[in-house]
Amino acid sequence: MLAACRQLPVIGLLPAGPRNAITDVAGLRLGHCTVADGDLQTGVTVLIPPLDNPFMHKLPAGLAVINGFGKSAGLVQLAELGQIETPIALTNTFGVSAIVQAQIAQCIAANPECGRSLPTVNALVLECNDGYLSDIQRMAVGPAHYQAALDGATPEVVQGAVGAGRGMSSFQLKGGIGSASRQVVVGEQRYTVGALVLANMGRLADLRWGGQAPGAALERRLQAKLAAGELAGTAVGDGVDKGSIIMLLATDAPLDSRQLSRVARRAAAGLANTGSCYGHGSGDIALAFSTAYTLPADAAAPMPALAMLHEAQLDPLFRAAADAVEQSILNALWHAQSVQGRDGHQRWGLQELCKD
Amino acid sequence: MLAACRQLPVIGLLPAGPRNAITDVAGLRLGHCTVADGDLQTGVTVLIPPLDNPFMHKLPAGLAVINGFGKSAGLVQLAELGQIETPIALTNTFGVSAIVQAQIAQCIAANPECGRSLPTVNALVLECNDGYLSDIQRMAVGPAHYQAALDGATPEVVQGAVGAGRGMSSFQLKGGIGSASRQVVVGEQRYTVGALVLANMGRLADLRWGGQAPGAALERRLQAKLAAGELAGTAVGDGVDKGSIIMLLATDAPLDSRQLSRVARRAAAGLANTGSCYGHGSGDIALAFSTAYTLPADAAAPMPALAMLHEAQLDPLFRAAADAVEQSILNALWHAQSVQGRDGHQRWGLQELCKD
Amino acid sequence: MLAACRQLPVIGLLPAGPRNAITDVAGLRLGHCTVADGDLQTGVTVLIPPLDNPFMHKLPAGLAVINGFGKSAGLVQLAELGQIETPIALTNTFGVSAIVQAQIAQCIAANPECGRSLPTVNALVLECNDGYLSDIQRMAVGPAHYQAALDGATPEVVQGAVGAGRGMSSFQLKGGIGSASRQVVVGEQRYTVGALVLANMGRLADLRWGGQAPGAALERRLQAKLAAGELAGTAVGDGVDKGSIIMLLATDAPLDSRQLSRVARRAAAGLANTGSCYGHGSGDIALAFSTAYTLPADAAAPMPALAMLHEAQLDPLFRAAADAVEQSILNALWHAQSVQGRDGHQRWGLQELCKD
Amino acid sequence: MLAACRQLPVIGLLPAGPRNAITDVAGLRLGHCTVADGDLQTGVTVLIPPLDNPFMHKLPAGLAVINGFGKSAGLVQLAELGQIETPIALTNTFGVSAIVQAQIAQCIAANPECGRSLPTVNALVLECNDGYLSDIQRMAVGPAHYQAALDGATPEVVQGAVGAGRGMSSFQLKGGIGSASRQVVVGEQRYTVGALVLANMGRLADLRWGGQAPGAALERRLQAKLAAGELAGTAVGDGVDKGSIIMLLATDAPLDSRQLSRVARRAAAGLANTGSCYGHGSGDIALAFSTAYTLPADAAAPMPALAMLHEAQLDPLFRAAADAVEQSILNALWHAQSVQGRDGHQRWGLQELCKD
Repeated sequence: MLAACRQLPVIGLLPAGPRNAITDVAGLRLGHCTVADGDLQTGVTVLIPPLDNPFMHKLPAGLAVINGFGKSAGLVQLAELGQIETPIALTNTFGVSAIVQAQIAQCIAANPECGRSLPTVNALVLECNDGYLSDIQRMAVGPAHYQAALDGATPEVVQGAVGAGRGMSSFQLKGGIGSASRQVVVGEQRYTVGALVLANMGRLADLRWGGQAPGAALERRLQAKLAAGELAGTAVGDGVDKGSIIMLLATDAPLDSRQLSRVARRAAAGLANTGSCYGHGSGDIALAFSTAYTLPADAAAPMPALAMLHEAQLDPLFRAAADAVEQSILNALWHAQSVQGRDGHQRWGLQELCKD
Repeated sequence: MLAACRQLPVIGLLPAGPRNAITDVAGLRLGHCTVADGDLQTGVTVLIPPLDNPFMHKLPAGLAVINGFGKSAGLVQLAELGQIETPIALTNTFGVSAIVQAQIAQCIAANPECGRSLPTVNALVLECNDGYLSDIQRMAVGPAHYQAALDGATPEVVQGAVGAGRGMSSFQLKGGIGSASRQVVVGEQRYTVGALVLANMGRLADLRWGGQAPGAALERRLQAKLAAGELAGTAVGDGVDKGSIIMLLATDAPLDSRQLSRVARRAAAGLANTGSCYGHGSGDIALAFSTAYTLPADAAAPMPALAMLHEAQLDPLFRAAADAVEQSILNALWHAQSVQGRDGHQRWGLQELCKD
Repeated sequence: MLAACRQLPVIGLLPAGPRNAITDVAGLRLGHCTVADGDLQTGVTVLIPPLDNPFMHKLPAGLAVINGFGKSAGLVQLAELGQIETPIALTNTFGVSAIVQAQIAQCIAANPECGRSLPTVNALVLECNDGYLSDIQRMAVGPAHYQAALDGATPEVVQGAVGAGRGMSSFQLKGGIGSASRQVVVGEQRYTVGALVLANMGRLADLRWGGQAPGAALERRLQAKLAAGELAGTAVGDGVDKGSIIMLLATDAPLDSRQLSRVARRAAAGLANTGSCYGHGSGDIALAFSTAYTLPADAAAPMPALAMLHEAQLDPLFRAAADAVEQSILNALWHAQSVQGRDGHQRWGLQELCKD
Repeated sequence: MLAACRQLPVIGLLPAGPRNAITDVAGLRLGHCTVADGDLQTGVTVLIPPLDNPFMHKLPAGLAVINGFGKSAGLVQLAELGQIETPIALTNTFGVSAIVQAQIAQCIAANPECGRSLPTVNALVLECNDGYLSDIQRMAVGPAHYQAALDGATPEVVQGAVGAGRGMSSFQLKGGIGSASRQVVVGEQRYTVGALVLANMGRLADLRWGGQAPGAALERRLQAKLAAGELAGTAVGDGVDKGSIIMLLATDAPLDSRQLSRVARRAAAGLANTGSCYGHGSGDIALAFSTAYTLPADAAAPMPALAMLHEAQLDPLFRAAADAVEQSILNALWHAQSVQGRDGHQRWGLQELCKD
């Protein structure tokens, strides 16, 4: 079974985009700021919409709270209004507030009437708890990290133990950032669905790797490594699924907020196919947005007048969303290197653990 | 890959109960009434709680609407009050109303003040569309079928193309009724989670059979059978996931309605593991209830005063729910015999299709 | 305080449409079929969208379940897809199923492939319990009543103890059907919001009549009438709010389903202003739809490409919805004549009760 | 009509508790920290549950998002788990993050394993936008203000332009903090429902004052004051309902989370009775919790085993919740003194505006 983990499965039958990443949706950029310093193994990741000032030109969006044990900021308003008006930031649980403040400050800088004649901005910062590897109590991320992530954003996607993914654990292995994309044809039009995950959930026993169930074999390998003293101070973990996963979905298909919520809900299928059943302590949140049009902040500006996809045409997008999420989680595990952090805690990268 | 389908996988690591069926939850009984007559291939299935008069002694329950394209009766009140007060009936989409009327009549017979000094009864009838195999427009089921299903109810569970499952299709194969159970230990207490599904969803290409992906091989076999003229008048189908699935979960663990809703949501994981991603046209509904206590209709009667499980103890129940649902769907496919129905439409039973 | 009830307040500052009824939204028609025969005081009311075949050309719609103690049919799918595809029918709780069957039969007659190559139809039948005045156990309404309501439909609105409102009670007085409309200007465009209620909720002590609180005075008057033997066999009632109210909102403003759900939620404000606080046993359901565009059933047909209203322009529509609902409830009470029904039970019409 | 505003109406027929405040629910304490310094008119208010360490002994709670245009922290997890595990803090929109950080720091101080072997804490900070009177962009509140509010907490309730209410506007008048309580008897047991609001919503034209509609008269008075130059630099405002209101409900009745959500939803009725119809830009959030029992953080600790109230006994609590919220809003307006703040903006206190 270990052999199965020595290659990366390709999930599903739909083709990927050129980068096989969320940035295959045109105009999106991704940036990371990684903190890797002894007991601090954490960071910030930011997904930037193709807009100069999203507060003035919002993107339609939808939400699926698959398991609500989480502290992400901005979800209640997103559910009500169906809009995104900032870059989407990812970080550790106790870092949310600092990044919210950074987003507010940036929005004010770009829109001096924000909170005065204009409404306050709905910061959007999603999180997982990286406290196993990182000293989360030190609240190590702040505005500078957010800015660095923004500054470094490109269409190229770096995956694994980077940015917000630096300290994350998944299936008791090293988790982190993963991304993938799938292309579908509706009518005569091709659309892309891209996924980006911050993977921090799962029990090793439950892991599914492209349909295979290598959990027991991996557990034995892990125990052997530990017994051999290869990494002092490391525990296998208690096997409780208390991690969380954030799943972002982007598409260039013209969908409204309700339809995007339906797309977001399909992330639950991709997540389940990796072996998770949405553990009690796991804040499993999916969010989908479209880049096909923008919604003006100015009530006097013209609203977009384009046709949405027909509801019965959503099935390929649902499949693309589920497959892209599953692929993204596998990619996160595949690309994540081993990391040692707080109090000697260690998570093995899957490839490192499985190599001969 | 066909070989994979010649045996029934055992899902997960948790032990099943003695019957590996929902009736492993003590006191539950299941009954079917099957209509198999040319263009009519339909029926009624009923799951009976361990209570003489559930209208007066209700069961705590929770709901998960995974995809709301469906016409089941009773869900809005169940979501509000967290209670079940009738047997749970399954039938075809256009048969719901007749069975609602049967439930109302039975409740009035047992409780002559129902709708007068007592509230009206919240009939609970869930459905899938069996219109591919059965002439759904003829509205063939009625009170007599419901009564027959009640009369025949036992703790023994018959699966496959029976009762409400008679005309159902799943993964373009013959679907229908499936059931399974899993046992968990919380603290020092053993609890059972049982599942019963009415499986009518899925595209063949998407099928996952214990992690294997036999869809393409099955599709070739199906094409060959058709080419050989083995079954005139049959089409493979259009491959759109427009079916629906009803997933009932029962447990003897003491849970309140909110907790049961959380259990019900995990049905989505089991469903996804069979290859579904909750297609647009598929009404995917899960419902969970507990038999650990009852809630009196009489406001002056004493309310139960027992401790619920701690939230952090739900994980084994979540896993049990996901695994039992996945197993139930496989069981439905495994046990379903081939059925020919309306206009010569045919669905192959998996075992029949795969045998040498 | 009785004097206050001798005139009908005008709610709010917005102008009404020409009919001050839901049919001020162009193209809508309303029909009633009333059953008034001793112990049977019930009926069917139907609101018909301006479409020949709504199953093929659906209307965008949104839902607000204010208190989910109710048995209406069609709500789960409406919430998922944001569409209406039949006339909207109102009737008594135990009559829902018969009217669902009538809607299915009509849809099949107009669309012979319904339930075959086309999906099944989502019947939409909303209900309140008229069991105080009518022998609800006799299930007295059926397809013929539904057809009669359809046949008699006109833009003229008859209010009070008619159609589905025949047996309804509200604030322990005679309730029933009420309607109203309000006009708003957004930008340079005038829009109409129309409301139709089936009012069957409320405790007399709680009644608010245009801001006044005449409950105690009405209760004294009621007691005096009873003491005078004016109506043998009548009780004031137990004062529990166990009735329910259905609130339909229509508009010609271009709104999508999410926005219409927001409009529907404002019905809760209008309802509260009459004195209700959404009693436990009251199924308080609001539904809003737009006639500004239709959604084709055929996935290959072009989807509408018109601009929705800007979110920040919804406030006048919210106020119009709240005011139209409050006015509709007052209108229902104002127009309802006294009715005597089952077992001599009687509900007084407000005007009759208050006159000198 | 101005005369009507010279007295404070008593809402409803239920008796108030001894303080007519949320602290009539035994054990609750309320604290304010007020910032009143030129362009800064803001603050923090904290409601403290009767527990030394709510992170280890949580309170059951429920949520109602009446209009989700808001940025409160902690709501998603509260909705999932039905628990409160910190004091409840109120502040301005851009101050939420700083108070979240203060709550995290306090929880870590009391529970050093928070975020390590124990889960992260779900900070609970609710907000309204006081940007009309206060320079919200300066992010003026922080941990010291939170601590000061905690330190000053007592069972005595100070209302009006204090704490988080310092800069709030309501109905274009001075809003802020208001509180009230109502007592009900269920069976032979007396229970208290207490409300605390942070009132920052409403258009003056819509104001209802105990059923009266003094909006137009107050608007004329306001215009006259302005014309007389009594307060330079003040505008009446644009009359858009973009404020928000937070409504906290506490009770000593034994209710579970689902029941508490039902109680919270009745806050919408009390709010509507003051004239609001939940404007688009108004984040209207209600939260209800019970002090009747606690839920241990430790999964091995015994869970409470007490009987909840019967569902049909909730009606008096619903009425109490609606009335206490309405009374609290009136109290906030009644007690709020006039405040001048940012850029000379001014909001009149109702009493000051109405006096001869």
